[in-house]
Amino acid sequence: MRRVRVFVLLVVMAAAVLAQAAVADPRPLVLVIHGGAGVIERARMTPEKEAGYRSGLSAALDAGYALLEHGGSSVDAVIAAVRTLEDDPLFNAGRGAVLNHEGDAELDAAIMDGNGPHAGAVAGVRHVKNPIELARLVMEKSPHVLLVADGAEEFALEQGVVLVPRSYFRTAARERELEEARRVEQARAAQPPATRHLARAAGEGSMGTVGAVALDSAGNLAAATSTGGLTNKLHGRVGDSPLIGAGTFANNESCAVSGTGQGEYYIRAVVAHDVCALLEYRRLTLAAAVDEVIRKLQRSGGQGGIIALDRAGHVAMRFNTPGMYRGVRDSRGRRVTGMYQGEQP
Amino acid sequence: MRRVRVFVLLVVMAAAVLAQAAVADPRPLVLVIHGGAGVIERARMTPEKEAGYRSGLSAALDAGYALLEHGGSSVDAVIAAVRTLEDDPLFNAGRGAVLNHEGDAELDAAIMDGNGPHAGAVAGVRHVKNPIELARLVMEKSPHVLLVADGAEEFALEQGVVLVPRSYFRTAARERELEEARRVEQARAAQPPATRHLARAAGEGSMGTVGAVALDSAGNLAAATSTGGLTNKLHGRVGDSPLIGAGTFANNESCAVSGTGQGEYYIRAVVAHDVCALLEYRRLTLAAAVDEVIRKLQRSGGQGGIIALDRAGHVAMRFNTPGMYRGVRDSRGRRVTGMYQGEQP
Repeated sequence: MRRVRVFVLLVVMAAAVLAQAAVADPRPLVLVIHGGAGVIERARMTPEKEAGYRSGLSAALDAGYALLEHGGSSVDAVIAAVRTLEDDPLFNAGRGAVLNHEGDAELDAAIMDGNGPHAGAVAGVRHVKNPIELARLVMEKSPHVLLVADGAEEFALEQGVVLVPRSYFRTAARERELEEARRVEQARAAQPPATRHLARAAGEGSMGTVGAVALDSAGNLAAATSTGGLTNKLHGRVGDSPLIGAGTFANNESCAVSGTGQGEYYIRAVVAHDVCALLEYRRLTLAAAVDEVIRKLQRSGGQGGIIALDRAGHVAMRFNTPGMYRGVRDSRGRRVTGMYQGEQP
Repeated sequence: MRRVRVFVLLVVMAAAVLAQAAVADPRPLVLVIHGGAGVIERARMTPEKEAGYRSGLSAALDAGYALLEHGGSSVDAVIAAVRTLEDDPLFNAGRGAVLNHEGDAELDAAIMDGNGPHAGAVAGVRHVKNPIELARLVMEKSPHVLLVADGAEEFALEQGVVLVPRSYFRTAARERELEEARRVEQARAAQPPATRHLARAAGEGSMGTVGAVALDSAGNLAAATSTGGLTNKLHGRVGDSPLIGAGTFANNESCAVSGTGQGEYYIRAVVAHDVCALLEYRRLTLAAAVDEVIRKLQRSGGQGGIIALDRAGHVAMRFNTPGMYRGVRDSRGRRVTGMYQGEQP
């Protein structure tokens, strides 16, 4: 009888240990980033340029993932990744933002916390070094979701954000791009004004945007996007990046998405929310949902890319352009960047 | 034998006539409008005030429906209806827009053509008499979807729009509301700044917005929304109305929606697109889709209303507030307005 009791006790203990192990099995940690989609081709890339992009992407992955690894939230992680890309002049956001028709950067950014959900965004700011940080302040310190232009900068000052002069964003590379875009525009000046600006969407830098999605140890999703928009864009033009549902979306019930592409197409198709709606309502896999939305985008004539992540840690990175700067780092040891079509990831 | 042949011929002819009648049966024409949701109660309404609202709603219904009836497009119809409400000082849009913290109206509007789809929107404009007309110009005369603040007004001037002084919007009623809101705010000034502004969402005028959805003789859907936003809002705050997918959405593949309510909740839930996604992906009826989205809104703590219309001419008008100014006119002879809960429509 005593032996039976000891045996039962051992079985119970073993079961408890196994159960504990299952509980202790860490949830997957995942960070996915993009640095814009567009004409990114091996033939046009120098080894130095490629190394610069890859090191920028790796730095962003590491900055965000370090936080996830130490128990940080997905919101902290996507903001750290996006801020790193904003500070890198190679990418079209923050310091490296493209210039509008007047020669100024006009910056847009959004953050969405899938736990809540909560969201904050800014658009048309011209003196904010890290728009993604200001978007976070809108989310956390105001009752609003979206603040634009002067009002957003007034709010920044109230929150103690130090503004930077507009010259901070006027890098030599972006000034050359603007000159080139203006030359193209002048060549088309004979066309009627209504169609003249359509040329602005063209060019290598045109679909630059940076973004990140993450899944943290608490199982919470987040998404963040930041951009300078289009080279030579009209003053006041807002693209999809700061619009919740269009370029940025996260909800723990479905998924987290950040888009990069021709913003007007993304807005009309409500791209980021559409991915999550297909996942939730049609029960598509994340990859199938993203593929379906890219197909719809293609049919409408739009170009760009999407990164997406669900709560199980599934990742999708798709685009219908020659390339998309991208990267993923996760708790299974994956740490990889990509630029071209056909490349992993 | 001959009698049988004649009988068969008659049956075939009758069938042909019936089939013809079915084809000739005109597609339904429908226009649905709202003038905002909120604290609208019989007990607080005078007969004069009620008559004013009802006549404003009827005028908007008739202005839009007259166009549908004469073969006009759903875009023409929703713009005519919204413009009529913008010009009526009783509704929170255009002339009757509420005032922001600085005492100015800051106006937002969006139009979406479900045939295309195409879209145009403006936000944070302060000198535009009919923001919905400017949204249409953005849709038709620019390559962009959303223009904000000064840039939107610069575009207006380029398009020959005559700007109005800010005093046009400073009606006595809205100035009294702003004074009242500021008094409430001062009473709460001891609270930390982060939560202080939360009080701004309160008050009768707070969820005013005007909108319309229509179905025309070509079977095309359209949606339009226009608003002054929240009384005493921060300068630069943009709500859901001008955001495609949040407060305004139309696509011939699914439905047309205009929302009115606490904009921040509508943005985070991507309300207008969510209705259409439930219809298209989950195959819910329009009424069931709208009910589901209102339920989700309620669970998140949000308040407001939704009007929606599908290509078969089904109409839904739901809200979780005491009332919503609303109306419908269609080709089956329906022409009715409503204000309170429980009232038809």
